[in-house]
Amino acid sequence: MVSAHNPEGVTPRPAAATVRYELLTLGDELLLGLTANGHLTFIGSQLGRRGALLQRNVTITDEADAIVAQFRESWARADVVITTGGLGPTCDDRTREAIAEVLGQKLVFDPTIEQAIQERFARFGRKMTANNLKQAYVFERGEVLPNANGTAPGLWVEQDGKVLIMLPGPPNELQPMFTNQVVPRLAERKLLLDREAYVQLRTAGIGESALETKLQPIFDRFGAALSVAFCAHQGAVDCRVSSPSGALSYQQLEAVAAECAQSLDEDFVCYGHDSLARVCAELLRVQEKRIAVVESATGGLLANTFTEVGGSCKFFAGGVVCCTNDAKMQLLDIPECLLLQHGAVSEEGAVAMATGGAETLGADYALAVTGFAGDVAGASGNPVGTIFVGLFSPAGVWAKKLSYPGPRQTVKVRAVNAALDWLRRELTRAQRGAPTPNRRTGVM
Amino acid sequence: MVSAHNPEGVTPRPAAATVRYELLTLGDELLLGLTANGHLTFIGSQLGRRGALLQRNVTITDEADAIVAQFRESWARADVVITTGGLGPTCDDRTREAIAEVLGQKLVFDPTIEQAIQERFARFGRKMTANNLKQAYVFERGEVLPNANGTAPGLWVEQDGKVLIMLPGPPNELQPMFTNQVVPRLAERKLLLDREAYVQLRTAGIGESALETKLQPIFDRFGAALSVAFCAHQGAVDCRVSSPSGALSYQQLEAVAAECAQSLDEDFVCYGHDSLARVCAELLRVQEKRIAVVESATGGLLANTFTEVGGSCKFFAGGVVCCTNDAKMQLLDIPECLLLQHGAVSEEGAVAMATGGAETLGADYALAVTGFAGDVAGASGNPVGTIFVGLFSPAGVWAKKLSYPGPRQTVKVRAVNAALDWLRRELTRAQRGAPTPNRRTGVM
Repeated sequence: MVSAHNPEGVTPRPAAATVRYELLTLGDELLLGLTANGHLTFIGSQLGRRGALLQRNVTITDEADAIVAQFRESWARADVVITTGGLGPTCDDRTREAIAEVLGQKLVFDPTIEQAIQERFARFGRKMTANNLKQAYVFERGEVLPNANGTAPGLWVEQDGKVLIMLPGPPNELQPMFTNQVVPRLAERKLLLDREAYVQLRTAGIGESALETKLQPIFDRFGAALSVAFCAHQGAVDCRVSSPSGALSYQQLEAVAAECAQSLDEDFVCYGHDSLARVCAELLRVQEKRIAVVESATGGLLANTFTEVGGSCKFFAGGVVCCTNDAKMQLLDIPECLLLQHGAVSEEGAVAMATGGAETLGADYALAVTGFAGDVAGASGNPVGTIFVGLFSPAGVWAKKLSYPGPRQTVKVRAVNAALDWLRRELTRAQRGAPTPNRRTGVM
Repeated sequence: MVSAHNPEGVTPRPAAATVRYELLTLGDELLLGLTANGHLTFIGSQLGRRGALLQRNVTITDEADAIVAQFRESWARADVVITTGGLGPTCDDRTREAIAEVLGQKLVFDPTIEQAIQERFARFGRKMTANNLKQAYVFERGEVLPNANGTAPGLWVEQDGKVLIMLPGPPNELQPMFTNQVVPRLAERKLLLDREAYVQLRTAGIGESALETKLQPIFDRFGAALSVAFCAHQGAVDCRVSSPSGALSYQQLEAVAAECAQSLDEDFVCYGHDSLARVCAELLRVQEKRIAVVESATGGLLANTFTEVGGSCKFFAGGVVCCTNDAKMQLLDIPECLLLQHGAVSEEGAVAMATGGAETLGADYALAVTGFAGDVAGASGNPVGTIFVGLFSPAGVWAKKLSYPGPRQTVKVRAVNAALDWLRRELTRAQRGAPTPNRRTGVM
């Protein structure tokens, strides 16, 4: 997944990279597989963006003995220990007590927290039960991280030259607390960088090794000062440039990234972490255009991807999900003879679907996705994984055939990404006033 | 998340429950948050279904030293250690060597694996590179778990009265290997139960505490012989009944569950792990009916949920995703005056959308979801989180108003589940020939 071009002999590294971070995620629901461990994904990526690699994540049960033993071990080994979960009001929330025991600290009652909890209950017209008061107990030598979205506050302790951060389990409470309170505090103490650690370029439509080959001449000019990592996911590859030695400033890294972007031309999507859908949305907004979608193989996933972007009503004209020929004829006014002659899963079908979608929904652009994502292939001899994407645009309408291996969900995500990337390229060209190449030979 | 009613004094527990399982998930991409740790979710739930609670999951970097130290610790503590990842051909795949060192075993070359890899490359028309041979090295005292979907086989070692299982990282390779090879081997050695450990009832439309109150009289009759756990997720609550002491047979647990199901009546969804969409799909198939969907607030998620079910063309007539009034009028033939008078986000709007969807797509049933899932509330005074669901059925058409807190994605999932549950109840009633109650006062 991650491949790195790490030149040797790079010293000294900045503080953040050598700080040992450990994450303890608590909860039987994680070990029973009832809930995905999203805290690892979130906290790992946030630390990474500020120059720290999480050293270890341990998930254990809610039992007090297990928590005591594991925390003792992590506290001895790490510089910063972050815990998630177990701060709630119920009897299986034992983290606070277990950790206080290891630290040799007393838990003391904080009346301002009680008041905040009372107010929160009052705001929602509910009555506070007595067990909620448990959440008002804090470490005698520690600080409180207020929780804007729930009752259990976070806790911050500095002791033995180390930092302990205890966060509540619900993601909508943990995530803003981490971003707004924890990251700035860690950066103040030089345990994280006070800026992003790397500049990320997102690319699409180019494989990881082709990307590396294309950019290597640029990287070579900077030798050991530059570190490069690639991460491929479902039709897109991210490239991160950093300078662990600090030999290159952030501005210099931005200049390197800009040079890479220019060399990549249309394969360059954006800097940072925006999704393909968000990039398309922004291009549509600037150009005051709207997009419609027509889906069979992706079954609503493409529409859902667009509508995940905030304010999608402005640029998303609507979508049609249709598996049967009847639905296609009825909703999109596609002639039956076309579907009978070519089949809906064909270049002709994709063109007709995209055109019908744009016209019916009054959109400037339309994407159509048809094919066999699932368990059953077509009679036409196209195997599972065969996808046709159609693109309607002010400059014309085209279709192309794609093929992906893997299970249904993989095929669907790859098809959605391919469709979004094609739209992105077309919108970028329109913005530049560049001519549209012959789509049938285009890169995909 | 998980609450348990665990009576005291239950001994002896069957072997599986006392076996100490640890899972080591290897890979910087997990710690950097680039990939979610789906292996924990999958393996944790599979072990749970066979009566074992995973004790610990540790995620560490790819460094050989870290792997050696962590494996040594886990091997000393656990009865079964499962590792994932690091078996591939590249230089950062160091798991095999690191663990062989701790076990004091030699790695030996297995020509039959080389042959399997060669054949796999030939089948895909690719040339095998030399580094792939690394994957043909196995423990001198161990067994090979053939990999039907990739090049790196799994490895199985029994030593020091313990079991080590090493699995490849890609989920499409790991998951069938675990289900088809690892689970049966563990069950043979009595390290897992040879049957499901619990009977699960899925419920919807009833809260966790109401559910517990309703079922408690049944549970009470079995006293300490019965263990009950609840798990709530987004509008649905699962209830698992088991008998850790073995005092109740599996058949007796099934009888308890059947009694619960009867007492829950319409709130009972199914036994096992089927999704609400799959349960609806099955009811539609049996009754030879088709469903259409019309979405604004859920933006394609409801259509996508239906089309995730295999063979959805049979029961899914199609979907329309429309944010604007124009799209609603154009695609669904909804009169402008209705939208102007009541607004699209209203009971009247939801009824019109459901009716328009059913008629346009020629479906027997239709669900419509309209509302404010995102960041912007409506002018009508309805806050963010207000959702109207419309249901068109052969028995009539109704709408109801719902309200959910939380971010967009939560509101969308809750709305989709509420819509599916309403359809499920209506289909269940139709199947029984039961009358349809007044929807506006129905449970939701």
